Amino acid sequence: MKVAVLSGGVGGARFVQGLVEVVEPGDVTVIGNVGDDVEVLGLHVSPDLDSILYALAGLNDEERGWGRAGETWRALATVGELDGETWFQLGDLDLGLHLVRTQALRSGDPLSSVTRRLSVALGIETHVLPATDDRLRTWIETPAGEFPFQEWFVARGHRDEVDAVRFEGEAIPAPGVLDALEDAELLLIAPSNPYVSIGPILAVEAIRSALAARQVPAVAVSPLIGGRAVRGPADRMLQRLAGGTSPAHVASQYPGLIDALVVDEADADDLDGLGDVRSIVTRTLMSDPDARKRLAEVALGAVVA
Amino acid sequence: MKVAVLSGGVGGARFVQGLVEVVEPGDVTVIGNVGDDVEVLGLHVSPDLDSILYALAGLNDEERGWGRAGETWRALATVGELDGETWFQLGDLDLGLHLVRTQALRSGDPLSSVTRRLSVALGIETHVLPATDDRLRTWIETPAGEFPFQEWFVARGHRDEVDAVRFEGEAIPAPGVLDALEDAELLLIAPSNPYVSIGPILAVEAIRSALAARQVPAVAVSPLIGGRAVRGPADRMLQRLAGGTSPAHVASQYPGLIDALVVDEADADDLDGLGDVRSIVTRTLMSDPDARKRLAEVALGAVVA
Repeated sequence: MKVAVLSGGVGGARFVQGLVEVVEPGDVTVIGNVGDDVEVLGLHVSPDLDSILYALAGLNDEERGWGRAGETWRALATVGELDGETWFQLGDLDLGLHLVRTQALRSGDPLSSVTRRLSVALGIETHVLPATDDRLRTWIETPAGEFPFQEWFVARGHRDEVDAVRFEGEAIPAPGVLDALEDAELLLIAPSNPYVSIGPILAVEAIRSALAARQVPAVAVSPLIGGRAVRGPADRMLQRLAGGTSPAHVASQYPGLIDALVVDEADADDLDGLGDVRSIVTRTLMSDPDARKRLAEVALGAVVA
Repeated sequence: MKVAVLSGGVGGARFVQGLVEVVEPGDVTVIGNVGDDVEVLGLHVSPDLDSILYALAGLNDEERGWGRAGETWRALATVGELDGETWFQLGDLDLGLHLVRTQALRSGDPLSSVTRRLSVALGIETHVLPATDDRLRTWIETPAGEFPFQEWFVARGHRDEVDAVRFEGEAIPAPGVLDALEDAELLLIAPSNPYVSIGPILAVEAIRSALAARQVPAVAVSPLIGGRAVRGPADRMLQRLAGGTSPAHVASQYPGLIDALVVDEADADDLDGLGDVRSIVTRTLMSDPDARKRLAEVALGAVVA
């Protein structure tokens, strides 16, 4: 079964890891968020694509939740000693990838080609695509001012409440994205932050239209458990921007775009207001490989149910 | 006593280390070669300036002869795994410096400012200046074709014989260079390769003119011992391009620019043809800190002799 999945970084990457355990890896296309891409020390960093690549290559640090296992930080320590910018954590292993990607981008390769090259080098069979090759950047409006995503998220530790999320840049889908959405027998939205992880993907109008015009089922997995985010600010954002953190508030972020929402058992008593969206209740915490795989199975089960 | 010294990389850096043991470090200005600067993985690398900075900061790897002590190579290993360019060795610690410098250069800072900033951060009192802030690149003409310096030196292991050395770019001295040459009570040329280390500095016409018009003594230290280079291709180049490797052949590379040449005891019987250039015979192998210091003392002694 061919599957296309929209995904943010860490949580999405974990979900995708589970997914390729139950679907042929080569039948899965991951459409990744690039709204939080950032230039650090002159290098182009794509945190969400990298989380997906590292997870699929088995190189990710399970414990820390981001970056590579066995990472060291010697280059960044030197940068600090030389009074360079150190607000964004770049490990030595991670740097190797950023150097290769940045050089390729500077030579004119689009991000999708570079990502494919990196995937091949890492032995990944799953298709990993950026939502767009164009420059698309997420800006966060807060009472303290408007910030580029990573400045708000990393440098300010996402401490500011969010009044609005804005996307900068006119973007069209990267080559392969629309084909993947068209060929898929199931469309999935990973348990990622609807505003800052999935939102930038859906900000590419042709992707949103393709989802809205789908001929196959679309299933989102809620990133909340008992109304709380496992990590990150999704719950605070939903509370402030959508008025609550129930499954219905999550589903409201994908209007007309999903047929079912996978929610956690902890939210089973709070299923009002989902309208046409069917709820699928299961355990959604991806605490280990088995849990990830089970969650993917449930999401896939939505098709046949 | 104020001293200005023209220097290439490794050998020059060692000499400068000895020099600042016998002269107040703040009274020394090093004018470094930038002809072998290179863009690697999108980073601006200044190998000779770095050798000087690392040596003066006590961070250099004495045994390997280049780069930093305690270096690791994890980023570059990753670059290799991702099929990126690995022909030029960049360690993790070294990368930190290249990232900081490259970012500063891209933001419009001239190389001399960046070098000063790095010096300050590394606690270096000696003034380290690039010969020029302009783009000046050394090209090596060989029977196999013409190559940018590092491609010939590193990628091809300087295996090709050299027919000619050419400098690309119109360059004026970096701020501070002419002042340092004017203020100096002694001008030194480090035991570096005359063609590819000192040559690019003298290719900056105003520097060459300042040396030619000097009011103070100028002393070069020969990089050869018994007609052989301690490392690198200086001897092969002198043989082929100047017709021999005697002290007179070395001195011929600095016509009208030096008053004395420090040569090794092993060359003491081969002092013919030096003309106006006085020879100073001593042990020149900089095998340890004491040897470096003694060599610097001898070079300085040329003034009072």
